[in-house]
Amino acid sequence: MITSTSNGQIKKIQQLLKKSKVRREEGLFVAEGLKMFREAPADRLEKVYLSGAFAEKGIWKEILREKGLEKEEREIIEVVEDKVFKTLSDTVTPQGVLCLIKMRDCTLEELVPEGKVPLLMILEDLQDPGNLGTILRTGEGAGVTGIILSKNSVDIYNPKVIRSTMGSVYRMPFYYTSSIQEEILPWLREKKITGYAAHLEGKNSYDQEDYTKGTAFFIGNEGNGLSRELSQKADIWIRIPMEGQVESLNAAMASGILMYEASRQRRNS
Amino acid sequence: MITSTSNGQIKKIQQLLKKSKVRREEGLFVAEGLKMFREAPADRLEKVYLSGAFAEKGIWKEILREKGLEKEEREIIEVVEDKVFKTLSDTVTPQGVLCLIKMRDCTLEELVPEGKVPLLMILEDLQDPGNLGTILRTGEGAGVTGIILSKNSVDIYNPKVIRSTMGSVYRMPFYYTSSIQEEILPWLREKKITGYAAHLEGKNSYDQEDYTKGTAFFIGNEGNGLSRELSQKADIWIRIPMEGQVESLNAAMASGILMYEASRQRRNS
Repeated sequence: MITSTSNGQIKKIQQLLKKSKVRREEGLFVAEGLKMFREAPADRLEKVYLSGAFAEKGIWKEILREKGLEKEEREIIEVVEDKVFKTLSDTVTPQGVLCLIKMRDCTLEELVPEGKVPLLMILEDLQDPGNLGTILRTGEGAGVTGIILSKNSVDIYNPKVIRSTMGSVYRMPFYYTSSIQEEILPWLREKKITGYAAHLEGKNSYDQEDYTKGTAFFIGNEGNGLSRELSQKADIWIRIPMEGQVESLNAAMASGILMYEASRQRRNS
Repeated sequence: MITSTSNGQIKKIQQLLKKSKVRREEGLFVAEGLKMFREAPADRLEKVYLSGAFAEKGIWKEILREKGLEKEEREIIEVVEDKVFKTLSDTVTPQGVLCLIKMRDCTLEELVPEGKVPLLMILEDLQDPGNLGTILRTGEGAGVTGIILSKNSVDIYNPKVIRSTMGSVYRMPFYYTSSIQEEILPWLREKKITGYAAHLEGKNSYDQEDYTKGTAFFIGNEGNGLSRELSQKADIWIRIPMEGQVESLNAAMASGILMYEASRQRRNS
């Protein structure tokens, strides 16, 4: 049982929670809560920290068994005194379980798996962790095949992103690019994927285009929208019609509406 | 110029920010930021507080003029020392303007304006301020005619709701009901509005129903979904199809997808 906040492992978790640099160096990120433990892929589970109170319940043993990891219990499980555990938790009422998960690196090719029509989200400098998490969760639901992020976007392993993905972060392939313009645009052309940018001056409403073939939606930064450079390079501009005095939708909401329109068309085609 | 945090007006604003009870008693709520000032209806603007730094810029005079309130400057405008203003702001970098706005009470009838086909959101015990704000903003964009909330839902005048509405809170008619079952369901029947509940066991996908006639969507609490009682009273269950291992969508996202599907059908009908 870990009983002190000055324990080396506790300090390491705190660093992993706070600093994306430390996460990258260690190749690890922190996923908190029962659902995130339950859905964690067995082969990427590095460590599981249980609060004293949670350790007394049997459920974690069950989950370990489901993952086929019962033999590794000693190496994987650490119990942490409730008081100390609380200092690690982002939430007011921690569920008492926190995992260290190995990152995985996807290649661009993994975002367009064979047998599936590509449906990609290309996020330029997205900043809000809740928005990114919601795009991952909704994107998995809508059948998005992969997410591409500009290098200045929020870190996908930020604890607030992780939480709002509700587990989709384990499953959704994603790729950070050094340059959407230089790396991604030529690749989209090569793959015959059409790039759509939401734009107030789009000729067609978003539901008047055909997304049953390879599709990529460009989504911009929350404050500034898509950069001029990138929106001019998109193949097609689309409008999300807005009544009243609404000037724009939240970035995650706009993404969700576009992704589910693509999903609707593909189901009905 | 107000220079002390113990000033009576400053104390009142702090109470209005924190306590929904005080807001109800005073019939006032707080709206922060330049956009919220710009969009505030002239006849509901009670007071405008400017930080010293912001007061020096001319823009607030312009906005007051646009609203036809230049003569009321003395009664409406108060300048607050920057240091004191900061204690009122919810944000890290306050824009330096904060308004007190008179609440308005809508009747149910105002949620179904003549000449428009009703499109209503009925929210049962929604708790997250960001979700409610996003539903208002997206709802205005999608042409929602009104929002009905159960009395245990989050307060629409909570500062976090206000901020995420981006001004829609001024324009979207809404109504808090003491009972969805007893007050709203009979009223929907009387108005010939069909009630749709998102439900995992819905026979039809949400895009297979017709929302071009009077439509109400029932949305449940973030943690528990729609109550059994209410979902059983809905006219039609609909499913939002989800791929992968996604079990549910965020409440605001589910709302947005449904509202924009109704909007799409109405545009194309």
